[in-house]
Formats: sequence, C-alpha cells, structure tokens
Amino acid sequence: MQPAARAAPASPPRALAVAAVLPAGGCGARMGVATPKQFCPVLERPLVSYTLQALERVCWIKDIVVAVTGENIEAMKSIIQKYQHKGISLVEAGVTRHRSIFNGLKVLAGDQPGSRLSRPEVVIIHDAVRPFFEEDDLLKVVKAAKEHGAAGAVRPLVSTVISPSTEGCLDHSLERARYRASEMPQAFLFDVIYEAYQQCSDYDLDFGTECLQLALKYCGTNAKLVEGSPDLWKVTYKRDLYAAESIIKERISQEICIVVDKEEKEHIGHLLEAVLRNELNHVKVTSGVPCHAGGSIQHIIEQCYSFVCVNVMTADFQNTQKLLDMLEECNLSILYPVVVFSVHFLDFEVGPLSQKMESLMWIREFAIEAKKRNILLCGLLINYSQDERKLQESLRQGAIIIATLMKERNFALVGQLLVA
Amino acid sequence: MQPAARAAPASPPRALAVAAVLPAGGCGARMGVATPKQFCPVLERPLVSYTLQALERVCWIKDIVVAVTGENIEAMKSIIQKYQHKGISLVEAGVTRHRSIFNGLKVLAGDQPGSRLSRPEVVIIHDAVRPFFEEDDLLKVVKAAKEHGAAGAVRPLVSTVISPSTEGCLDHSLERARYRASEMPQAFLFDVIYEAYQQCSDYDLDFGTECLQLALKYCGTNAKLVEGSPDLWKVTYKRDLYAAESIIKERISQEICIVVDKEEKEHIGHLLEAVLRNELNHVKVTSGVPCHAGGSIQHIIEQCYSFVCVNVMTADFQNTQKLLDMLEECNLSILYPVVVFSVHFLDFEVGPLSQKMESLMWIREFAIEAKKRNILLCGLLINYSQDERKLQESLRQGAIIIATLMKERNFALVGQLLVA
Repeated sequence: MQPAARAAPASPPRALAVAAVLPAGGCGARMGVATPKQFCPVLERPLVSYTLQALERVCWIKDIVVAVTGENIEAMKSIIQKYQHKGISLVEAGVTRHRSIFNGLKVLAGDQPGSRLSRPEVVIIHDAVRPFFEEDDLLKVVKAAKEHGAAGAVRPLVSTVISPSTEGCLDHSLERARYRASEMPQAFLFDVIYEAYQQCSDYDLDFGTECLQLALKYCGTNAKLVEGSPDLWKVTYKRDLYAAESIIKERISQEICIVVDKEEKEHIGHLLEAVLRNELNHVKVTSGVPCHAGGSIQHIIEQCYSFVCVNVMTADFQNTQKLLDMLEECNLSILYPVVVFSVHFLDFEVGPLSQKMESLMWIREFAIEAKKRNILLCGLLINYSQDERKLQESLRQGAIIIATLMKERNFALVGQLLVA
Repeated sequence: MQPAARAAPASPPRALAVAAVLPAGGCGARMGVATPKQFCPVLERPLVSYTLQALERVCWIKDIVVAVTGENIEAMKSIIQKYQHKGISLVEAGVTRHRSIFNGLKVLAGDQPGSRLSRPEVVIIHDAVRPFFEEDDLLKVVKAAKEHGAAGAVRPLVSTVISPSTEGCLDHSLERARYRASEMPQAFLFDVIYEAYQQCSDYDLDFGTECLQLALKYCGTNAKLVEGSPDLWKVTYKRDLYAAESIIKERISQEICIVVDKEEKEHIGHLLEAVLRNELNHVKVTSGVPCHAGGSIQHIIEQCYSFVCVNVMTADFQNTQKLLDMLEECNLSILYPVVVFSVHFLDFEVGPLSQKMESLMWIREFAIEAKKRNILLCGLLINYSQDERKLQESLRQGAIIIATLMKERNFALVGQLLVA
C-alpha cells in the first residue's frame, strides 16, 4: 500500500530469516455482510490483496503463508494470480484464529513433507484486514522480537474498558492510561511461538485471542510492547471498509502527471500545469513528454495513477492515444484504477461549442476499451478564451474537476466529455 | 441523522423530564488536524451539527446543553443559526471533559441566576462526535437510568486489552469476553450524577475518563450496562471522518424521486423508472408530478434528497425549473446537498448530437444558481433510440450515472451535461 516513493526504508535486520503468517480464515461476522471482510472489495480489489501487497514490498520477508478456509482456497488462488502476488504459500485455516496460525507455523517449521519453505528465525504474525502498515512498523516488532523473543504493536485505548458484574451492572472501570490495546503485527522467535503452540491446550486454541499471552504462558517470554502508529488499525466493521477505500483513494491521488508535447509546453500545457499546482494543494504535479522509446514519463508512470494529457487545439488525440498505449504496456492498472484526462483547449465563443464537441465524441468509444484495462478515460474541454479572465476561470474549474474525478475514481463517468 | 422515515420510534418514557449534556470542548489531538474533530466538515457541515440534529429529532428530550470552549462559542452560535437547531443552550467548556460536563449539569440544576432551564429528572450525557445513534439507543439507557440511577451503552472489545509492565513488556492480557468498551450515550438520575460531580475530587475532574465510575464511587450507584448498537461509534481519527461521510452519503441516498409530467408517465418516464428500480438495488424509487399548489411530491420532498426530473423531448426544462422552485421553498437543502438530474431524451442518431446538446447548455447557468442553495444540478441525455436494445443500454447507463453522482454528491460536476 505504498504507491509513491517514500523516504528510504529503515535497514532490514542483517541476515535474519523472516517469514510472515497471515490468518485469513475469519468469517467477518461483525461486518454485517455475507462476504468475509478480507475478501470485501476496496476499489474493486479484495482487501487481502492490499495486505499482501504491503507485505510483498518488504524485501527482507522471505515467505508469506496465508491461512484460508477450504472453501476460499480457489478464490485466494485467483486473487494471487490476478494481482500477481509473489512468494505466497497457502495453508488451510483452522476453525479458530489460533488454529489457523498454528497451521501456518507448522508449514514453516519444515515438518511437512515436500514443503519448499525453510524454518525462519523470526516469524511475523499479521492480520489480513490490516493493510495500512509501513515497513518501519514491521521492522520495529521484528527487531524487538529478535531481542526479547516476542513483540507486539500496541495502541492507546480509545474507550474506557469496564468490567461488568454478573447482573450486567458496572463492577469497576479500568484506568485507561494503565492499559493498551493489543494490535498487529506481532513477531516472535520462531522457536518460541512454535513451542508455545505445540504446548498449549485445546482451550487456548479454541478460546484464546492473544498470541503474546501464549508465548508468556508456555515459554515464559514477556513480549516487548511496541507503540504502533495509528495506521495499524483493523478493518472490523462496514464503516471501516468505507474508511479504507477513502484512504486508498487518497494515497493513489497524491501525484498527477501532465503529459504535453514539447512545443505545447510553452503555452497551454504550461498554463494548466500552473493552475493545477496552485489549486491542488498536497498533490505533487509532475510533467512529461510522451515518447514511446525510452520515454521520459516512463519512470513517472511507475509511481503515478493520474494523468492529464494535453492535446493540441484540434480534435487531435494523439497524445492521449500514446499515453494509453504506454499504460497498457507497463501493467500499471493491475493494482489500481488509473485515471486519464484527455484535455482539449477550445475557444468556446468562436462558433458553436457543440460542433467542436461532436468531433470529440470518439472519446466514448476509447473509454469503453480503456475501462476493460482498468483505466478511466474522460474528456475535458477548457475554454481557450482570448479573455484572460475567462481562460483562468476555465482552467481553475478544470483543475477542480480533475481533482474530484482523480479522487473519486468512479467508472460511471468514463467516456464523458466534461466542460470546464 | 435520520433522513428518511423509519419504523415507528419506541414510546418515550411517560412524563419523564429528560435533558442532554453534550461536551464539545475537546481539541481532537488524535485526529491529526488543526480543527477540533467536532467542527470538522462532513459534506461541508460540521460534525457536531449532525449530532445535534440526531438529538433534536427525539421529541422527549427537552433541553440540550452544549459545552464549548470560549474561542469556539461564536462558531457554535453560527452553526446553530445556519442549520436552524432548536432548544440548544451553550455553556463554557472546562479544561477537561469532566469539567465540561459538570458545567453543563450546573446550568441544568437551576442554580444559575436567570437560567431558563429546569432541572430534569434524567440527564443524558453524550459525545458531540457520535452522530449515528438511533432514538432507541437513547431510550434504552434513559429507561435503565430511571430504574438503576445510572446506565451506559457498552460494546464488545475489538482488540485484546493488555497490561504492560514498567519495562514496557507484557505483564498480562485481559480475557476479552469478560470486559466491555464503555461507549456513549450514558444517562443518570440527575440527582445522582450532580451529587457525584459535586462530591468528586479535582483529581477525578482532571484525570478521570468515566462518568459511570463517578456515580459508583460517590453515590454507590452501580450503573446498568446496556449493549449498544455498532452505530454508537465515536469519530476519533481522520479515517473515522471518511467513514462518517460515506455513511451519511449512503443514508441520504436511500431514496430517489422521479419527477414526471402525467402524460409522460405512460412512456419515457416510466421506462426510466423501471430501469432505476431494476439497477439501483436498496434504493427506494418513488415518483411524483411537480405541481406548485398542493403538489403531490411535496410530501416526498421532505424525506428525499435525490431527484430525477424527466423533461419532454425538446430542450424544454419546465419540470426541472418547477422542481428547483419547490426545493427552494421547502428549505430541504439546508442540512444536506440535494441532487437534481435534469433528464432529456434524444435520439442520438437523428442529426448530430451536438446540435441538440447546444440547446441544453443553459444548464450550466442554472447549476451555478442552484449551487448557491446547496443543490447539485446535472444534465443527463438519454438515447431515445428506435432500436430497443440501444434504448435499454442507454437507460441502464443513465441509471448507473445517476446512482454514482447521487452517492458521491460532489459539487465539481454541477452543470455538466452527461451522456448515457
């Protein structure tokens, strides 16, 4: 879940063999929907795929074992194939979370005949429904686990915790500052947590909720608690899916690339670029020239999911076409829908606007094709008026339309010709 | 926060004088934004206004006292005025939540010279940042408070709660099923909670987090714990604002009203209505005739925030104009942005589409005016093709566009003429 380049990641633990186990067998009862929450779509992609993506990008995690129920194995396999996840092993989930984790650990232990996995020194346990961590969050718990045998992320309590009496009345409330909510990720020396699971009782496996507690109870390991970032939250309720979608939309809308021809840059493209920079705070505006062989926007394309393609004043759309071809080549839209605006400058007052629009209706056909490749193509007309005030107003309006559609990324509006 | 008619509310406590205190003095440090969370805009309206709206609709709550910091008093006054909230008294917040609540209780106690408020039998304490409760949630705690002296909503714990050692390691974890998260609303016999606040120490007022605990400690009242609905959640982090906005958008998009002329109903309007019913699952589709005097859609207008106005095949827009006039009269758009689609049926293949579009460009001007009144006006062209397949495809596409804009309610697209 890291679309854009960030600060250099912290250095990975030196020569430490790390694997991750992701229990994904839950049924999502609290979500109030039939689909288990890890399979609920966010921008049309299952939530678990975002979590896998976030784990995959951490180069020092060697293997990722996902525990899914038998009935979801095929669905999980097609997710892995469709979104091109690498280095994932599947194992059948148990009837409880602890049993699923135990199944994952058994595969990593190397006890399984024919297993291609090797026993790691440290194992991360994470949740399929927490896609929003950073590499640094993992690194902290892994380092702490290496030192203390076990470690887990914690967060301050949001609500006061109270203990009810048997009659359903308040018995006492806990002092909020003295407790922490136990979150994920957690990490363990493999031998510690595997030993704990082998020792623990059926009651623990069926009713326990806390891996750190097992390490304490069966191996005497007091886990190090690591204060985690707010990003570690878990998608639990339906409202959390809404929040997740908004966060992902925001993250992939942090950068916009204006594609112009060299000769245009001197005037129209440059004007739009200036207004975009001014109107879209917090958005990084880059620009490039579409060029098929060794193209200068090739490197931008790998980090950016929103493009504004400025075409010459006629109903030409060569720039847009070139960009669409490049996007198809680089597979950028496999993980996220990509937005492309085909911007056309016309003087609205010279002749009826409608006649000029007619010649741009091709965009409807192109959009249908682009949509199949997860690309949202829209047309945008800007009033290239001789009146400087009108031009600026249209540019400003165009920037607002671009910002909105870039943020909402909704396919219902593809192929529309919008007028700024 | 109840836009549409729901099931009949439970009966209010008979002749019970109930008031509510809403501490709204917090600074929202966890939100990571400069604006205190209760004043953060959701669909351009401050969150606290949604909570006030939800309290106001409960007819058996007599007075609502809101505690705000001195610097926010004026902002709060203008919110009350702009969104026409009734029966609200303001009091200055204290430096902590407990002190703010105490200030609110003092005003209700009738100890204040010149106060127009009377001492209630039961007082509800709620949070400004929990707008999503139902009347029934309040009723349950009020009834329980009347019987037990104090009551509060509780929810299952989402995370395991753990106790850290002084070294920051796990000391022990709590058995999740034996504890509950204390949520809001809470309710008290006024005399109980007022007594508790009068008795309690400065330490309690400055560092305590739990009103139920005060009632227990100083009045020996064991509060009844009431299992609350998931709707009782608190807006705490920025992601919660995203979730809140999505929930509100969803709630006000549950119903769509198609406005047609009587003679049209037989053909075009009816076709669109059928497709909308078919494509928009979970949305209630109603229809009405615009009629200024005693109009038949007048009653619909009071519960519905999305309108599809079918105009005759020419560039006529009388129906849309009538509807806009009616909406202006009834002040519907004070609380929520209202969406209006002006739908026009044209055969795309008879003559150039663009010429017909030209005559609909008036919509841009109308939209600018409507926007000032919080109404989002868009045009939508549907292909009234002789080819039944093309007609159905265009109707279906139109339904998808309508559903999307109705859900997103974004002002950047007002005045656009969309083509289905």
